[in-house]
Amino acid sequence: MDPGTTQDAARITPAEIAALRRALEIAADPAVPLGPNPRVGCVLLAADGTILAEGHHRGAGTAHAEADALARARELPGAPAALRGATAVVTLEPCDHTGRTAPCTQALLEAGIARVVIARRDPNPQAAGGIDRLHAAGVEVVGDVPAELAATAAALNRGWEHGLVHARPLVTAKTALTLDGRAAAADGTSRWITGPAAREEVHRLRTTCDAVLVGTGTARSDRPTLTARRPDGTLHPRQPLRVVMGTSEAPDLPAVDGAGEALHLPTRDPSAVLATLFDRGIRHVLLEGGPTLAAAFLRAGLVDELIVHLAPTLLGAGRPGVADLGITTLAQRLDLELTDVASLPTPGGARDLRLTLRPRTTPAPA
Amino acid sequence: MDPGTTQDAARITPAEIAALRRALEIAADPAVPLGPNPRVGCVLLAADGTILAEGHHRGAGTAHAEADALARARELPGAPAALRGATAVVTLEPCDHTGRTAPCTQALLEAGIARVVIARRDPNPQAAGGIDRLHAAGVEVVGDVPAELAATAAALNRGWEHGLVHARPLVTAKTALTLDGRAAAADGTSRWITGPAAREEVHRLRTTCDAVLVGTGTARSDRPTLTARRPDGTLHPRQPLRVVMGTSEAPDLPAVDGAGEALHLPTRDPSAVLATLFDRGIRHVLLEGGPTLAAAFLRAGLVDELIVHLAPTLLGAGRPGVADLGITTLAQRLDLELTDVASLPTPGGARDLRLTLRPRTTPAPA
Ligand SMILES: NC(=O)c1ccc[n+]([C@@H]2O[C@H](COP(=O)([O-])OP(=O)(O)OC[C@H]3O[C@@H](n4cnc5c(N)ncnc54)[C@H](OP(=O)(O)O)[C@@H]3O)[C@@H](O)[C@H]2O)c1
Ligand SMILES: NC(=O)c1ccc[n+]([C@@H]2O[C@H](COP(=O)([O-])OP(=O)(O)OC[C@H]3O[C@@H](n4cnc5c(N)ncnc54)[C@H](OP(=O)(O)O)[C@@H]3O)[C@@H](O)[C@H]2O)c1
Repeated sequence: MDPGTTQDAARITPAEIAALRRALEIAADPAVPLGPNPRVGCVLLAADGTILAEGHHRGAGTAHAEADALARARELPGAPAALRGATAVVTLEPCDHTGRTAPCTQALLEAGIARVVIARRDPNPQAAGGIDRLHAAGVEVVGDVPAELAATAAALNRGWEHGLVHARPLVTAKTALTLDGRAAAADGTSRWITGPAAREEVHRLRTTCDAVLVGTGTARSDRPTLTARRPDGTLHPRQPLRVVMGTSEAPDLPAVDGAGEALHLPTRDPSAVLATLFDRGIRHVLLEGGPTLAAAFLRAGLVDELIVHLAPTLLGAGRPGVADLGITTLAQRLDLELTDVASLPTPGGARDLRLTLRPRTTPAPA
Repeated sequence: MDPGTTQDAARITPAEIAALRRALEIAADPAVPLGPNPRVGCVLLAADGTILAEGHHRGAGTAHAEADALARARELPGAPAALRGATAVVTLEPCDHTGRTAPCTQALLEAGIARVVIARRDPNPQAAGGIDRLHAAGVEVVGDVPAELAATAAALNRGWEHGLVHARPLVTAKTALTLDGRAAAADGTSRWITGPAAREEVHRLRTTCDAVLVGTGTARSDRPTLTARRPDGTLHPRQPLRVVMGTSEAPDLPAVDGAGEALHLPTRDPSAVLATLFDRGIRHVLLEGGPTLAAAFLRAGLVDELIVHLAPTLLGAGRPGVADLGITTLAQRLDLELTDVASLPTPGGARDLRLTLRPRTTPAPA
């Protein structure tokens, strides 16, 4: 958010920072589905900084976070008086439009909220305008929150925001490579190139995406369950839709109790798959296919983020990690921007690297 | 060094730390050849901590660093009295054997040196024993120097020490790879995979090695000069021997004024090449060959260190960075230990990564 333009240059207080942390935590409740609704948390603070009530959005058709928190506050002794002059700390700009529920701005104003702390502006043109409305009604609006919390708020609804702007799901491609760029050995073995820390991370990644996508090649050779599991093997409460794409027959994904729905899309068209998934409410796809699918999405310009788990090992032969990209000479290379490098230690004392990259859309600034 | 075993547990003083830094600096004088003699620096300090004289070894047949410094000190007014009770700060344990020159221990004792600070123990069984001799003669020996300086002292003579232990040169293999492990595009173009910072680093690396080695394949396709150049294109004073190996005819390396000698060894045997180079006094080889030579040395277990300049770019096709290693299944993988990861920024805002690895000889500790 751009502080100081539409809201007062009021500063966030320590109690509000703590409340925002809490609001971000409850917004991320793993019981809440991802998909076409943003995840939002709200904490109401009394004038003395104590928490009056918390609320969060639980998916399509349920109350918005603000309404949820206000309803809980109203159950308290002393309500509604306690709400007059209270502060609402929210992870996303309150909506200002009438959908399945009344605008949150109206609910906050009716309750007599005097101050609102907002971690992220709503990129949805339909729902935006909340800050202006509150401001016009004399509410003090604080938009300048610590950068770390602003980043958490942005990450919370990455797929949802991407969908609003691009009308297709965000695509994170994940691949495990050897130092010499192999995704499997000559005989097809690829389990496991990376150590347990990298593999655990894949399961965490799956819980942050609406769908996991592989090609029929991986479905046939690896028989992956595509579930999000905890280190102890139990299933995470939030499971991604499990999608296989490709025109050939592929074995059904293993049936696992509590796993996400399995879907076979008999096409090789990345755009068509993303359109189908978008229509089903999918906003963030984790592409876990093999070299063929990775190359197909890269060629189509449909990879928004690439996560490489790089193992410090050499094979000298085997499946190249990325199939043909139609590049024949160095000048045609597909340049990526390296946004993060992290070490993933393994129990044996070795460590893999996690490289996070995104395709370069514009030339890098000088 | 292991302080407190053969020497007093005397602590190094700030003046001695400064003198050791200086001794390391002069030892590394780029005018001094590498090869079968260690590079050594010596700074003599008066009792009040002021510098009396400096000296360093300038290669085979020249005075040892201690003798060089003592000779300079003796030219000063007031010598030899000023040397009585003085401190010698040396980058390497003074030798205790009579070779082309008298033992340095004897020279130090005769001059009346009362204290010696030593950054690194001499791994050469023939020359070692200096610490014991000094100690026995009542000299105070300080071996506990700051870790950073001890590491610099060790790095100074890495190749020389390796030769003493293994009777072959140290081999550092350097390769530039794309994220998908390609060393060249499909049409053979490989200039430049990495940015200017990585390329500059290669030139610095060449100044620290006695020889640069490529195969006839690289000699033919790249016509490399294999010189160590500064960013402005001028030649560094120290130039490596330029070696091409392989049984076929290869064009002569380009003739460059001031470049190292060029040598074609008509063999495919990595051990034979290293033996020949060792006999010529080479102690550290920078292997800059293509995928074929890299694989040949890796298969032979003759790569001691691997430096990968990893460019965040994809080719999807082209020359694999490492040729066949005889590995067919994942369990046979050649595991490496990742010892360092560094970012090499490029002017365009992109950055390459430098990964430093060494083959795992023993299983990693749990
Ligand atoms: N290292 C890793 O991170 C990793 C990850 C996954 C898999 N793997 C390994 O990769 C190997 C499998 O590789 P893969 O490339 O066959 O797997 P894949 O990319 O998952 O599947 C490839 C198949 O998907 C179909 N497909 C769908 N869209 C396509 C398109 N746009 N273009 C071309 N084909 C399309 C094709 O089959 P149809 O004929 O059915 O259309 C194609 O053969 C296995 O060894 C597996 O272990 C490694
Ligand atoms: N990305 C990088 O860092 C990098 C670095 C260097 C080169 N390159 C690229 O790599 C390509 C050249 O690759 P390359 O593999 O041909 O170069 P190379 O490894 O330098 O030379 C290979 C040749 O060396 C000879 N040779 C010597 N010892 C051998 C052994 N033990 N086993 C097999 N052959 C041996 C063979 O030729 P004989 O028939 O003469 O024996 C062989 O064809 C070029 O495209 C170049 O641009 C890239």
